[in-house]
Amino acid sequence: MALAKRSMALILGLVSSGPARAEVQGRTVDYKQGETVLEGFLAYDSQGPAKRPGVLIVHDWTGVGPYVKKRAEQLARMGYVAFAADIYGKGVRPASPKEAAATAGIYRKDRQLLRARVVAALAELRKQPNVLPDQIAAIGFCFGGTTVLELARAGADVVGVVSFHGGLDSPTPADGKNIKAKVLLLHGADDPFVPDAQVKALEDELRGGGVDWQLVKYGGAVHSFTIPDAGSDNSKGAAYNASAERRSWKAMEDFFAEVFVGRGGAAR
Amino acid sequence: MALAKRSMALILGLVSSGPARAEVQGRTVDYKQGETVLEGFLAYDSQGPAKRPGVLIVHDWTGVGPYVKKRAEQLARMGYVAFAADIYGKGVRPASPKEAAATAGIYRKDRQLLRARVVAALAELRKQPNVLPDQIAAIGFCFGGTTVLELARAGADVVGVVSFHGGLDSPTPADGKNIKAKVLLLHGADDPFVPDAQVKALEDELRGGGVDWQLVKYGGAVHSFTIPDAGSDNSKGAAYNASAERRSWKAMEDFFAEVFVGRGGAAR
Repeated sequence: MALAKRSMALILGLVSSGPARAEVQGRTVDYKQGETVLEGFLAYDSQGPAKRPGVLIVHDWTGVGPYVKKRAEQLARMGYVAFAADIYGKGVRPASPKEAAATAGIYRKDRQLLRARVVAALAELRKQPNVLPDQIAAIGFCFGGTTVLELARAGADVVGVVSFHGGLDSPTPADGKNIKAKVLLLHGADDPFVPDAQVKALEDELRGGGVDWQLVKYGGAVHSFTIPDAGSDNSKGAAYNASAERRSWKAMEDFFAEVFVGRGGAAR
Repeated sequence: MALAKRSMALILGLVSSGPARAEVQGRTVDYKQGETVLEGFLAYDSQGPAKRPGVLIVHDWTGVGPYVKKRAEQLARMGYVAFAADIYGKGVRPASPKEAAATAGIYRKDRQLLRARVVAALAELRKQPNVLPDQIAAIGFCFGGTTVLELARAGADVVGVVSFHGGLDSPTPADGKNIKAKVLLLHGADDPFVPDAQVKALEDELRGGGVDWQLVKYGGAVHSFTIPDAGSDNSKGAAYNASAERRSWKAMEDFFAEVFVGRGGAAR
């Protein structure tokens, strides 16, 4: 029936070209935190509406690279203005796990600096002309999960934060009371780097802060479960897990449908 | 545009009545476990396809009543054949919390009997002529959550089980190795009747059994969070929570979309 209707409409010349096809534009964006130059990556659909929700994306310990750029483009196709934040600084792109651990370690130890860096990225996204400034969420992977939680703890005006296999520890758990964002934690149940006690401590922090939070644990998943380059050997403690990736992305989509209510970003 | 197309099609007499409107049929069904007569409630859309996935629903400690019947009708509108199991027996409908606790207690203590009752209900659903016999999932609320986990532990051929604020304890945790179903646990993070240690024990059981499992904890939710009659006072330990209800139902829908893949029940 749908086909017949469409055929008739075609004959009558009534059919528009339908929804415009996504034309994702991606480009690097230089911005600053204090005197430090940072280089993020902005992506959006040039055919999209004039204003739409924004999604800030924070990289894992390897810094801004192909993985977060791909995620930014994916979110752009979903109807968001996506911005991959640069926490480390322009040109700081660790080339080995050892270097990555050392670089991430600087920010894990200096949470105030980490917050300043992610707040600067949020400001950069917020000032984009096609972003709805009061409709911004932040997501992060591994180190980036830790970072978006620090963004929330800094009291940032974001409607939600999503941690994918993030480190969940906090040196200042009382800061949970500053959190205004809704919080979604997507966690590998067998993640050896984020043990139960750390998860429990965050639950207590969020509970104490009166935060609207949800935690999803994926059985059989370890650290880095959304990252294909992590390989498939769970015994290493970090490994890709296709079903946990798919499920966690869907959980994020459902969360966006809720926090961006009425904005249509996810409904495209 | 859609309107214009439809108007033109109407003029041309091309429009069918569109997708048939759901016409949910609900009726009680007597069946047996051993010599015990049980009275369940079956619901489906009489306008639906000839064969569709089935969803078994297990009641909370009050037994088969308006709540599970409403859930059955809701699932019928979603395209499933829904069957509210009767664990207690025809006419056994506890009238007070005290009576409900006593009745549920019989089955909590005798897990073999509980399994026999729920397995009988599954067989009753499976033999319905409009059910895809290899596409059946089971969900349960409170006591019913415990029950669908026992169904899984009995090694039943169901594609998935979903516990909404279920009791998660097991006297025989080694039975986790019998579980073939995917397991989704939807849990109130502040549920005083299902403490962290019980959640942890089930995680270990599922991990040990090599089960595909997921756990969602809803911050701020206590026991019975999907049940409006539970009121709104968290300090009582059981209370309705609208956002946890909405989120958990969506999580179930996503789970069904996965376990019933290609069957279209949830896609209607």
